[in-house]
Amino acid sequence: MPTNIPDIVIGRLPVYLRALSRLLQEGQEVTSSHELGQRLGISSAQIRKDLSHFGGFGKQGTGYQIAYLVEQLRQVLKVDQEWEVALVGAGDLGSALAHYKGFTNRGFRIAYVFDSSPDKVGKKLGDFPIRPMSELQQIVRDNGIKIAMIAVPAEKAHEVANQLIEAGIRAILNYAPINLNVPSNVHVQYIDPVLHMQRMTYYLA
Amino acid sequence: MPTNIPDIVIGRLPVYLRALSRLLQEGQEVTSSHELGQRLGISSAQIRKDLSHFGGFGKQGTGYQIAYLVEQLRQVLKVDQEWEVALVGAGDLGSALAHYKGFTNRGFRIAYVFDSSPDKVGKKLGDFPIRPMSELQQIVRDNGIKIAMIAVPAEKAHEVANQLIEAGIRAILNYAPINLNVPSNVHVQYIDPVLHMQRMTYYLA
Repeated sequence: MPTNIPDIVIGRLPVYLRALSRLLQEGQEVTSSHELGQRLGISSAQIRKDLSHFGGFGKQGTGYQIAYLVEQLRQVLKVDQEWEVALVGAGDLGSALAHYKGFTNRGFRIAYVFDSSPDKVGKKLGDFPIRPMSELQQIVRDNGIKIAMIAVPAEKAHEVANQLIEAGIRAILNYAPINLNVPSNVHVQYIDPVLHMQRMTYYLA
Repeated sequence: MPTNIPDIVIGRLPVYLRALSRLLQEGQEVTSSHELGQRLGISSAQIRKDLSHFGGFGKQGTGYQIAYLVEQLRQVLKVDQEWEVALVGAGDLGSALAHYKGFTNRGFRIAYVFDSSPDKVGKKLGDFPIRPMSELQQIVRDNGIKIAMIAVPAEKAHEVANQLIEAGIRAILNYAPINLNVPSNVHVQYIDPVLHMQRMTYYLA
């Protein structure tokens, strides 16, 4: 596996994987950097350059075999396996995440759900029993879970993140509208719809 | 207002605004690019450079007046007003969005909710009556709505986007796991948690 791939390139690979998986679903077998670029609004040169970091996957003039490219991208991104995910927060957002069907076949499965509210603990969220925060660290450790989603209010997010990291979590998807300070060996990605919307209103007349 | 600000800079302004609003909430009045950088994991030089595009807002050595900077950033991002937002899709995700309290005071208010399912139309989602898709274009036009969220399945997203754009929507937050082809005068931002998680698994051992 090559190293020192720019993070911005890594960030585009899941976008390619998603588009290619969709083409495959639609029954297509071969595509080109041109076609993919059209679908994604990314230049074909950029796509070829990005994929060349990993050997290129395609032969000049014959296009990409989609199934093969999908398999290769899954390996590169390490989603040719299924990662168990711990979800912290069983409110409206946590509930939507627990019910979300989009994780299936893309490398992830919510395996455990935690909440601090005595009203929620012990109840079920979809198929998941809602577990107390007191069990979080033990369960994460015992099951070697590396990925967590934080769906708690902003003021609780840092404390939750610290507990998760102490128990061995190395990747956090943070839905709380706050930046987390984490050690350099922990990866954090953020989802805050307002940030995306504010980025667009700048351009509106 | 300056033009030709790189989009990557625009993308960071909402992050600054969020952190500064939080400092203000915590009762702080003055901050520095150093402190802000520490909170955000962004270099203080980057922050000063980004803000200098808009006049700088700060005086050398005295730091930033947070309330003033917040007000200026709100104006730059055009969220010193409240934008009405149309939400399409009243499933689990749409429901979580309709209940989400994080839009308040950040420039947005979901004003209308639409769904195509006869089972849902006419019912209520929180405070919102769920309206049929047949009313979408008229309501968007009559109310001059410019921003929409798409929370429908992937296979329906393009059709919904086309309807929205035809009615005058110019900014779309797309939760459907698919890239949208839109005219150049329409802005699209994407939220797909799996893309973020796949970006992190690459780095996991």
